[in-house]
Amino acid sequence: MQSLLPEPVTELITVLGRLPGVGPKMATRLAFYLLQKGKGDVERLSQAIAGIAGTLTTCRDCGLISDQELCPICRDDGRPTDQLCVVEDSLDVLAFERAGVYRGRYHVLGGVLSPINGIGPGELRVDSLLARLSQWSAGGEVVVAVNPSLEGEATADYLRQRIVAVAPSISVTRIAHGLPMGSDVEYADPTTLRRALEGRREVSS
Amino acid sequence: MQSLLPEPVTELITVLGRLPGVGPKMATRLAFYLLQKGKGDVERLSQAIAGIAGTLTTCRDCGLISDQELCPICRDDGRPTDQLCVVEDSLDVLAFERAGVYRGRYHVLGGVLSPINGIGPGELRVDSLLARLSQWSAGGEVVVAVNPSLEGEATADYLRQRIVAVAPSISVTRIAHGLPMGSDVEYADPTTLRRALEGRREVSS
Repeated sequence: MQSLLPEPVTELITVLGRLPGVGPKMATRLAFYLLQKGKGDVERLSQAIAGIAGTLTTCRDCGLISDQELCPICRDDGRPTDQLCVVEDSLDVLAFERAGVYRGRYHVLGGVLSPINGIGPGELRVDSLLARLSQWSAGGEVVVAVNPSLEGEATADYLRQRIVAVAPSISVTRIAHGLPMGSDVEYADPTTLRRALEGRREVSS
Repeated sequence: MQSLLPEPVTELITVLGRLPGVGPKMATRLAFYLLQKGKGDVERLSQAIAGIAGTLTTCRDCGLISDQELCPICRDDGRPTDQLCVVEDSLDVLAFERAGVYRGRYHVLGGVLSPINGIGPGELRVDSLLARLSQWSAGGEVVVAVNPSLEGEATADYLRQRIVAVAPSISVTRIAHGLPMGSDVEYADPTTLRRALEGRREVSS
């Protein structure tokens, strides 16, 4: 019954409903929320959205969303230059930084290899990764932190092959897979259990 | 670690995070989704939001969101003029119309009485409701379909008093409260159970 509504409202509901995680019901609720807000609030949202269109770019080195040529992490001289963490997208960089568990640099791949979706090495930032590594002196480490999935594993394997071909002294590692904190063995899926078992370590005293 | 991000992205995450049902995580996800969309899509959303600011008004008679003086329902001559359903907001009208269970007209009250939140009769569209009813000849029905809550009941009671004072021949009814279809007596709250019992009817053969 959206035809009962003025066209601008219907249009807004349609466009909002295309956002990830926003169904038709939530889109309607959001639209009516905005209708009840003052003009200032609505314009601020509209402008905030318009503000990211076109003007933003990615860091020349690591590929993080950035409005400068180099992102704050790549500009940070305090970070080692021979420690790279390869992630799928900018959000993953934020997750690591938020956790505060890694102090090296990053490389945003832009996804994982997925032949079925037409995503090959050319669609990812693989060449720029290899270009960065070619400037390293001996040693260093690349932690492949793409998401755990079949495609993620294939991507990690592919990257390892490419990296050792150009820089055999670099060690290529993969973040551990296993049971997340607070989870339950009883409900873990078989693949996770197998990975957890394969990755077992001696309990240190 | 939003300080890692360009200011326009941080601003967008902040503004999106204020929307109802959108937490910080979802706001970040939405912002990055928009970052990955083409400029056209982003501008369409921005403009759709801007499009509702300031220009829209409400139906002169019923108060439904409308871009014309009268909404499509109030313009519909096929609907009886002595059947009004009083609802809290425009979304409720849509719900009734979607269900297709009511063919009369509506009156959007704009909320319910809530002294604690400073909402008295003056903040609601009560006067315009009485003005509409004053034009009725004898008879007719006003179905009060505000949401079931203490405030909703107080509002229904208040409306009934006001309406019978000016038009005693109008019957004022309240939608039934009880157990919703598909629910379970076992999990129903005491108030709902009491209402369901109070509203019991003879099983027709």
